[in-house]
Amino acid sequence: MELFIDPADERGLTVQLYDQVREAILAGRIGPGDRLDSTRRVAAGLRIARSTVAEAYYRLGAEGYIVGRAGGGSVVGPVPAVAPDGPRRTSARLPPVPAVGAIRPYGQQQGQTARYDFRPGSLDPALFPTADWRRCMLPALDHPAGSYGDPAGSPALREELAHWVARSRGVLATAEEVFVTAGAGHAVDLIARALVPPGSVVAVEEPGYPPVVELLHSHGFTVIGVPVDAEGIVVDAIPSQARLVYVTPSHQYPLGMPMSRRRRLELLAWANRAACPIVEDDYDSEFRHTARPLEPLQRLDAEGWVLYVGTFSKSLSPALRLGFLVAPLTVIPALRALRQVIDWNPPQATQSALAAMIRDGHLDRHLRRCRGVYARRRRLLWDGLGATLPAGYTRLPAVAGLHIAVVAPGLGGEPLAHTDVRYSELGRCYAAEPVRDGFLLGFAGIPTALLPEAIKAFSGLLRHSAPELRGQR
Amino acid sequence: MELFIDPADERGLTVQLYDQVREAILAGRIGPGDRLDSTRRVAAGLRIARSTVAEAYYRLGAEGYIVGRAGGGSVVGPVPAVAPDGPRRTSARLPPVPAVGAIRPYGQQQGQTARYDFRPGSLDPALFPTADWRRCMLPALDHPAGSYGDPAGSPALREELAHWVARSRGVLATAEEVFVTAGAGHAVDLIARALVPPGSVVAVEEPGYPPVVELLHSHGFTVIGVPVDAEGIVVDAIPSQARLVYVTPSHQYPLGMPMSRRRRLELLAWANRAACPIVEDDYDSEFRHTARPLEPLQRLDAEGWVLYVGTFSKSLSPALRLGFLVAPLTVIPALRALRQVIDWNPPQATQSALAAMIRDGHLDRHLRRCRGVYARRRRLLWDGLGATLPAGYTRLPAVAGLHIAVVAPGLGGEPLAHTDVRYSELGRCYAAEPVRDGFLLGFAGIPTALLPEAIKAFSGLLRHSAPELRGQR
Repeated sequence: MELFIDPADERGLTVQLYDQVREAILAGRIGPGDRLDSTRRVAAGLRIARSTVAEAYYRLGAEGYIVGRAGGGSVVGPVPAVAPDGPRRTSARLPPVPAVGAIRPYGQQQGQTARYDFRPGSLDPALFPTADWRRCMLPALDHPAGSYGDPAGSPALREELAHWVARSRGVLATAEEVFVTAGAGHAVDLIARALVPPGSVVAVEEPGYPPVVELLHSHGFTVIGVPVDAEGIVVDAIPSQARLVYVTPSHQYPLGMPMSRRRRLELLAWANRAACPIVEDDYDSEFRHTARPLEPLQRLDAEGWVLYVGTFSKSLSPALRLGFLVAPLTVIPALRALRQVIDWNPPQATQSALAAMIRDGHLDRHLRRCRGVYARRRRLLWDGLGATLPAGYTRLPAVAGLHIAVVAPGLGGEPLAHTDVRYSELGRCYAAEPVRDGFLLGFAGIPTALLPEAIKAFSGLLRHSAPELRGQR
Repeated sequence: MELFIDPADERGLTVQLYDQVREAILAGRIGPGDRLDSTRRVAAGLRIARSTVAEAYYRLGAEGYIVGRAGGGSVVGPVPAVAPDGPRRTSARLPPVPAVGAIRPYGQQQGQTARYDFRPGSLDPALFPTADWRRCMLPALDHPAGSYGDPAGSPALREELAHWVARSRGVLATAEEVFVTAGAGHAVDLIARALVPPGSVVAVEEPGYPPVVELLHSHGFTVIGVPVDAEGIVVDAIPSQARLVYVTPSHQYPLGMPMSRRRRLELLAWANRAACPIVEDDYDSEFRHTARPLEPLQRLDAEGWVLYVGTFSKSLSPALRLGFLVAPLTVIPALRALRQVIDWNPPQATQSALAAMIRDGHLDRHLRRCRGVYARRRRLLWDGLGATLPAGYTRLPAVAGLHIAVVAPGLGGEPLAHTDVRYSELGRCYAAEPVRDGFLLGFAGIPTALLPEAIKAFSGLLRHSAPELRGQR
């Protein structure tokens, strides 16, 4: 056990040692039979006289806290352990700031694994390209940097990301406009801290993506939900004083429709008049399936209002914590300065591995494999829901992505309770009163072979929880 | 190249295609001789009529942008590339918020390697336990989680950290009071966001640790530098309205003295009266060399005001981005809710590897090795400086840590310019007018064999830059 002394402490050295050993015994940190360090070792470690330690030990022995061992040394005696006083500090005196205290944790139910995991954020770990990732990580493990790196990310990874995003999404950027982050949310957070003054009004889609909505709330911003229609966010309804607009134009989260090209140009014109940055979260766009791709907002943006955000949580794994943003060049220095004082730079090894994954074509191959698997799962889920959903429930078509939204007839249903099935609630995506209720069912997390029974389990759950539906199809 | 169309665009499909190809040629994104996809492939990819594509290609050919190839297909014709208009968006319209714009980047001079790197944050990468780290990482790479983890960190790592910090520093905490971060700065940042209201006054030591001072400034706080004396921060001088106090009690950064036990108790009593949290940054405390250890503030804190911060940037590597904080139990939920909406959780693989490094004793062994090496380097640097520093320059004794502070006689020296030597400036550690000038020389970054010449280079630099010293010893 670690012993401390302070030469300036008026209690004196002996009493300090005595107090500490006694307290450790009473608190149960050392127990009967545990061996104490010899007086010589303690004295050497603390650079004090051995006799001082011996004196303390003598007193502890006289009071029965320690006993001598045959052959030398001392052990803790058979003193009954008293309930430790205050080992776990509970302080009601450090309340969180209101904006943080009010965060509604998103229902990811950490650690709660379920047999049928329909939560949109979940990925089937069996699809992860383990061998390729290991091959890319190994060289990175052997050459750790001795100093801090570029807060914007390693040059190699930024270069690969610039090519990657041009190739896969038509986002045009140089490596200098790319900033590596720990995911999409992290990118939005850095943007908010760097560009949006405290107390600002910010606009999000309604319904929207709850983790980002909560994130913006945590900054103390006034978050306004702007309705969406068939073409995406209703630009006319964006508050003119908004200092940030967060949108998911490639396919709206959660409802799935793409923002029309017309609406995109409208939004960009609005941004120019309002002098307001637009965050384009291009989630899941590697997984397009039914429609022709539309140009990203970033591509249409000649004036430099759009900050494009991407993540590898779906294309690789949420366990890696890798994402990025593409920003106008003049924004990068502020992001760099900010990141440096928070956590300096992204982890070196994972950056190196990701750059290799992209450069050597592993990521492309992995995505091709995944698209086939996800297309099958999507088809199974779509058809399965079509066959089993009770009357009144509607599947929403989605042009891309890894979940299907199901709209319930009417509002106000109780959450379904089931130990085997996890899903997300559509109502939770509304900041104001939900206009629609229903479910978000991700299909990336459930192995294909398990899907049919998962769908059965879900529809059984639905039927069971909605008594008025019993007797219907 | 990626082509896009929007069926709702009133320009019509042919014109859209024509525009995009023409623009790509003019911007230089495709160049003379580059092959265009066949009309059939383009039509299939966009799900439009082949004749539409053919029409667009015909018009491009008629205007000379593309030419037919012998054998079929089209290539970009010999059109002189025009300077691309606006490929790199420069937006002066997204200025950073003032608090972020004012961050003074700390002189880590990313990417600038130097032969003699005396910067306190640098580590000699040759000491990194490569084989052990790889052994601990490999199993972690093979089992990536498919969903998000606990924002506070993996249970296994939190458990190991609780034991580790009790064993190595006498910090008493259960795993539930441990929160894994991406370094010490990140821990301070989360604490600030969760517990310190916007616009607050916060107190730091003066001189202090610039990255954290800049971090606190970036939040928009009013940062007050509180003088330190031989026993540490002058508690009487802490502003009563402070909502956070950041201290480095085990050995003050940058001056090196430990906070006396008496002063620690004073600080804790102040915190209790002021109802103010104290952040204890226990940097470099694995590397004690000349004095008996004093109890951490956290250990003396019965009331739950202290948030203890640790990092593995020195004990392992700054490239890993691993740190932690120990907080009263009631603070953990707010930290968790906040972390979840930013970047969900720490990366899974590095957590797993670090837990194994601690559990299997690799970290302890590594630190024992390092202590020996660093003790030798410290002795070399201390003695070397003693032999070569010009008159008037004073070495400050330090009880722990990986740097030596050298105080210059007088103020106002110009920064020394040298391509081979890096160091940190003592003056930079003062928020107000520096009381002392000098240098911080870290010895963890320079291989032992290189130290003698590094010291020569530094003292040569000193002599060269201070003309009034020429002719002195």
